[in-house]
Amino acid sequence: MTHPLLDLAPLTADRFAAIERRVAALLSTGQDVVITQGEALLPLEGCIRSGARPGSTALNVVTGPYGQTFGDWLRDCGATVVDLEVPFHTAVSADQVAHALDRHPEIDFVSLVHAEAATGNTNPVPGIGEVVRAHGALFMLDAVASVGAEPLLPDAWGVDLCVIGAQKAMGGPAGVSAVSVSERAWERFAANPRAPRRSYLSLLDWKERWIDGGRRALLHAPAQLEMLALEACLERVEAEGLDALMDRHASAAAATRAGALALGGGLEPYVYEAQDAAPVATTLRTPAGVDASELVARALEAKPSLPLVAGGGALAKEMVRVNHYGPDAAPGVVRASLAALGAALGETGAPVNLDAADRAATEAWRQRQR
Amino acid sequence: MTHPLLDLAPLTADRFAAIERRVAALLSTGQDVVITQGEALLPLEGCIRSGARPGSTALNVVTGPYGQTFGDWLRDCGATVVDLEVPFHTAVSADQVAHALDRHPEIDFVSLVHAEAATGNTNPVPGIGEVVRAHGALFMLDAVASVGAEPLLPDAWGVDLCVIGAQKAMGGPAGVSAVSVSERAWERFAANPRAPRRSYLSLLDWKERWIDGGRRALLHAPAQLEMLALEACLERVEAEGLDALMDRHASAAAATRAGALALGGGLEPYVYEAQDAAPVATTLRTPAGVDASELVARALEAKPSLPLVAGGGALAKEMVRVNHYGPDAAPGVVRASLAALGAALGETGAPVNLDAADRAATEAWRQRQR
Amino acid sequence: MTHPLLDLAPLTADRFAAIERRVAALLSTGQDVVITQGEALLPLEGCIRSGARPGSTALNVVTGPYGQTFGDWLRDCGATVVDLEVPFHTAVSADQVAHALDRHPEIDFVSLVHAEAATGNTNPVPGIGEVVRAHGALFMLDAVASVGAEPLLPDAWGVDLCVIGAQKAMGGPAGVSAVSVSERAWERFAANPRAPRRSYLSLLDWKERWIDGGRRALLHAPAQLEMLALEACLERVEAEGLDALMDRHASAAAATRAGALALGGGLEPYVYEAQDAAPVATTLRTPAGVDASELVARALEAKPSLPLVAGGGALAKEMVRVNHYGPDAAPGVVRASLAALGAALGETGAPVNLDAADRAATEAWRQRQR
Amino acid sequence: MTHPLLDLAPLTADRFAAIERRVAALLSTGQDVVITQGEALLPLEGCIRSGARPGSTALNVVTGPYGQTFGDWLRDCGATVVDLEVPFHTAVSADQVAHALDRHPEIDFVSLVHAEAATGNTNPVPGIGEVVRAHGALFMLDAVASVGAEPLLPDAWGVDLCVIGAQKAMGGPAGVSAVSVSERAWERFAANPRAPRRSYLSLLDWKERWIDGGRRALLHAPAQLEMLALEACLERVEAEGLDALMDRHASAAAATRAGALALGGGLEPYVYEAQDAAPVATTLRTPAGVDASELVARALEAKPSLPLVAGGGALAKEMVRVNHYGPDAAPGVVRASLAALGAALGETGAPVNLDAADRAATEAWRQRQR
Repeated sequence: MTHPLLDLAPLTADRFAAIERRVAALLSTGQDVVITQGEALLPLEGCIRSGARPGSTALNVVTGPYGQTFGDWLRDCGATVVDLEVPFHTAVSADQVAHALDRHPEIDFVSLVHAEAATGNTNPVPGIGEVVRAHGALFMLDAVASVGAEPLLPDAWGVDLCVIGAQKAMGGPAGVSAVSVSERAWERFAANPRAPRRSYLSLLDWKERWIDGGRRALLHAPAQLEMLALEACLERVEAEGLDALMDRHASAAAATRAGALALGGGLEPYVYEAQDAAPVATTLRTPAGVDASELVARALEAKPSLPLVAGGGALAKEMVRVNHYGPDAAPGVVRASLAALGAALGETGAPVNLDAADRAATEAWRQRQR
Repeated sequence: MTHPLLDLAPLTADRFAAIERRVAALLSTGQDVVITQGEALLPLEGCIRSGARPGSTALNVVTGPYGQTFGDWLRDCGATVVDLEVPFHTAVSADQVAHALDRHPEIDFVSLVHAEAATGNTNPVPGIGEVVRAHGALFMLDAVASVGAEPLLPDAWGVDLCVIGAQKAMGGPAGVSAVSVSERAWERFAANPRAPRRSYLSLLDWKERWIDGGRRALLHAPAQLEMLALEACLERVEAEGLDALMDRHASAAAATRAGALALGGGLEPYVYEAQDAAPVATTLRTPAGVDASELVARALEAKPSLPLVAGGGALAKEMVRVNHYGPDAAPGVVRASLAALGAALGETGAPVNLDAADRAATEAWRQRQR
Repeated sequence: MTHPLLDLAPLTADRFAAIERRVAALLSTGQDVVITQGEALLPLEGCIRSGARPGSTALNVVTGPYGQTFGDWLRDCGATVVDLEVPFHTAVSADQVAHALDRHPEIDFVSLVHAEAATGNTNPVPGIGEVVRAHGALFMLDAVASVGAEPLLPDAWGVDLCVIGAQKAMGGPAGVSAVSVSERAWERFAANPRAPRRSYLSLLDWKERWIDGGRRALLHAPAQLEMLALEACLERVEAEGLDALMDRHASAAAATRAGALALGGGLEPYVYEAQDAAPVATTLRTPAGVDASELVARALEAKPSLPLVAGGGALAKEMVRVNHYGPDAAPGVVRASLAALGAALGETGAPVNLDAADRAATEAWRQRQR
Repeated sequence: MTHPLLDLAPLTADRFAAIERRVAALLSTGQDVVITQGEALLPLEGCIRSGARPGSTALNVVTGPYGQTFGDWLRDCGATVVDLEVPFHTAVSADQVAHALDRHPEIDFVSLVHAEAATGNTNPVPGIGEVVRAHGALFMLDAVASVGAEPLLPDAWGVDLCVIGAQKAMGGPAGVSAVSVSERAWERFAANPRAPRRSYLSLLDWKERWIDGGRRALLHAPAQLEMLALEACLERVEAEGLDALMDRHASAAAATRAGALALGGGLEPYVYEAQDAAPVATTLRTPAGVDASELVARALEAKPSLPLVAGGGALAKEMVRVNHYGPDAAPGVVRASLAALGAALGETGAPVNLDAADRAATEAWRQRQR
């Protein structure tokens, strides 16, 4: 039986523009917002190819896997790249960034990932933004894994290019994304003869034909279902309240960390300091002799829908990640995840205390609310 | 990932009434149409309990399984029931109905199923309607399996209570249904002190509170998703055109019958005369020694989505039913169904001609278009 | 553009039964659960017509509009009805029920609404259940507006017939509903020759053909889209956690009440005692001279999606209802509702303090979490 | 009320690969198929930027607006471009292409649009393909507006890069698209140092990481809703049968043209020869003094959902386009479109014959079926 429930008139330019305005309000930004018709990699690549060029020097802060990709693009554009690499179990500090900028005064572009969903840490963007602004470089922030989960204020923090997607904390679609662009970023793009133009990668096309044209005609047919899902997702976030949504994520992170610590059995937070831990995911190091991938597989047997995954690449053997974003940032999910993980760990013979984990998680959630 | 794509404002009374009007247009009827918030059994039961009472005599034409249910309800209401039973491989004739009415001049209610989805036959309602109208009885028609697949004209045919559902030819939802009610049916209901009132079964509630109240307030919250699916389904039918939709079903029936005849292997139409065959399903008798349920199971192995089923109850061993309604009334589905059925039959050792079946089905579809 | 995104295989009996089990778990009940294919009025009517008969005496507690309907059905069944009416601004007490039972020892059926969505109060069911159980009557509870918003424990409380719908606190569909049935309720139904059988209204049909038949074949095609929406809704409730869902509703009620009190301008809680107020909706009395319907219309001008409505019937002039159930039990919605209501009231010249209302609501939400 | 009906597990790599295979079957191609995560402009741009480079010479056939865009991209890549421009009221011929290839033996890339949705013509690709293959150039075809509406056989016709979208005849989503790539196209891309790599525009990334990696891991999160809509759309096309789908479009084109000719009132086919007319849309020239945009606006007043639009740009005053693709390739829609257009034209005082138009359209549809 096919139920064509959805009889969809094409999305109008006005409705598209209204979605842009809602994204701008979500980010408290007065910058232009462009909703890009592809995964967040599309605007990230668009920003770098528009902002970097031969003669540019970029500071590329690498706190997870995407930093590597940004570096590749920057080098592709002919820019000189200074990579600032930080171990995955910690955050970069504003001091480290300041130090790099001091050593390379010619830096005119900084790329940073706000929260790292893969490794579970988050970076102190306000302080970094202050340093970058003082230096004068263009500042690009990948905020896909932070938007909705923790404060994100591009204007206050001096972020020139703030890229978001809805697929993490907002519980929305991954097929469209958005970027806010400051005036000076537009100017930099416009002055770059190599910036993509008349291209699917081009942000300037949206500036010149869509924004400057009064937002009357889209450049091409949008990904309509993804746009509608984004619109619905923004409505939900507004109804819940952005503060409540962020609270829910912070509580989930606190509860998961507390529960894991109380569980025992040798499971330890991968990110050393709680303040460096991302609200969207808690990463845990498995005890010696326990393969993380196998542990996760066992934990998922009873309830495959739980948001548990093993780390990627080299981390597959030693890192378990408890995702708690979107609808999963909820006490029911966190407690069920800890219970499943604890039971699987117990089966390996490790001494675990399931009750203590559940109590600690429940209590931490409550504490967070005060 | 949960995608709450559908942010649905409650269905307004105006939109509900507009859906009723579309159903009335579909039936070319000037009668009141009530959209009932349950499967079609709900209005069928509502009609019988409202129209029949102690002292009533009902002619209940039994050409398939639902006739048995109607008889039970009629007896429940205290009516005297004359059952006119017809073998499942044929249709009832207007003459048979006329004969029964002549023998029982006291009959004041006639119940009939238009097309029988279970057994694959269809009854000649126009002629029967003429006879019933001349006699003066109230005429209830179960048109769930005919609407959209063959002509259905309650006003022209003298049908007082025409019950439809969207789940067959219209390819729509089963959770809501509709009934058109003639003026004299309303009068008969109103005069029946035992007719359901203030009840989920009541049609009079809808008459008195919804229709006579100017269609301003629904009696209770509707099954909103099913209503929206019905609305979308009606739009599709209007866009395709009712004639084209009926043509498609007639073509599917002709093609399936022709293909089955050309296939050989001992498979034979269950309904003797092509003119008695329903456009929504073709029933076939399996050759001796071939269990229909096993044949269907084998045919579905490769492509489980094909609309093939074995007969119900006692027919499970000997009847195969090829459903071809809604989106399945299409050459691609009919040809794939014949191919799967033929291949499964061939595996039993029966001499089948798959090519001939495919050619005959294709040709019959073409012929029907002229 | 029609996007038939949903290609839905028919719901299997197993999946239907699994949804029943999830409802049973939600209610912590060992009773049979039947999912009824219509709005909650269908099982409520089914319960009364199955449980009451000539010779029965029923205590019908009337704390809102549905009590009237229950009384009608009870009288329809030939039962003697004792109506216990309570003013809408308060709850019924266990003592009042005990007193009525003492005066009418012949009472064998008690009907009660748990929370009244229309008037904003909720009744103390645990104590009432104790009294009814001691008396020995069958106890039917309409829990449509309480399930998910406040504790609901039919087994612990001695409820024999607990009817729920998903359209309030659970944020789910209204087109299907459910009822849990105790063993002694089944016995009482079976012993009632007038209980609906072979009928859309029948609960015994589901007992005899579905449950006793091993849950292998549904009685008829279900309202598939509504069933899928119910399933999705139950999954969400489980993921969030029932406690968290109830907390959210209690917080929304506390915040709305506190905000309204702080707003000033003459708006007052309609339900005198906070403990009698339902978690799904807060009802407010408008000051003299301010028409509630007009006030609501003005408040909705800017943001029509806010969950504000005027009271029904005679209350339309004096009662404003702030609904806060399902996704609307969220700080963002509560604060926006108070702001809109306050602004509209301010326009009438009433002295309102919007800041104080917002602060009080925010603070009350926080306090509730401790 | 939010109905999160869709609880979607992430699309697996296997399911993604299965969708690719279905697209390959639709095109009867043995080439690799890549499903690109953006509108069809994305793979079109990807093909040109991968296939063209400084030193290339491209023949760019311009039969509508997209040809202009292709020329821009080709020049961007440093290729020498030979534009072959053809008036919009006709098709390009294989002879014209052969002539251009003869004059420029250095041509190594040919770009062509199959059917032009904007101007209503279609080009004879089989003959052109033969000429291009003999010459040896890489042949890119934009088949977005032809796929599903008319034969499309990249392997038989020698098309190296065949780009499709589902938003026209297939009635599917616009947010994802696909391209089939021949072996020699992959070789040409791989040999091009300027071909996009590690980029949203890159086709080679999909080749190297997805296809050569055994289709085990997607490059990034896909546009899941659009992918599911594409999958559902392919299932529908298979069920209907590709032949039946193409027949439906050819019939719609024949019926619209015949109806317009019979209507009178000065409306004339924009494309001179019926054989050059695209099956997805019929373009009509308005009589002198009748503004096409105004005519369309008037025609849509009564039924805004009809698929009527005025021409774009300079054609807005003189061209009306009747779209008849996807679900709109149906007799009901064609007849309603002609009736609305005819009535609007009649209001300008033009002598129109609505009955004749309806009869001619109906008859032409029937004739086409033979």
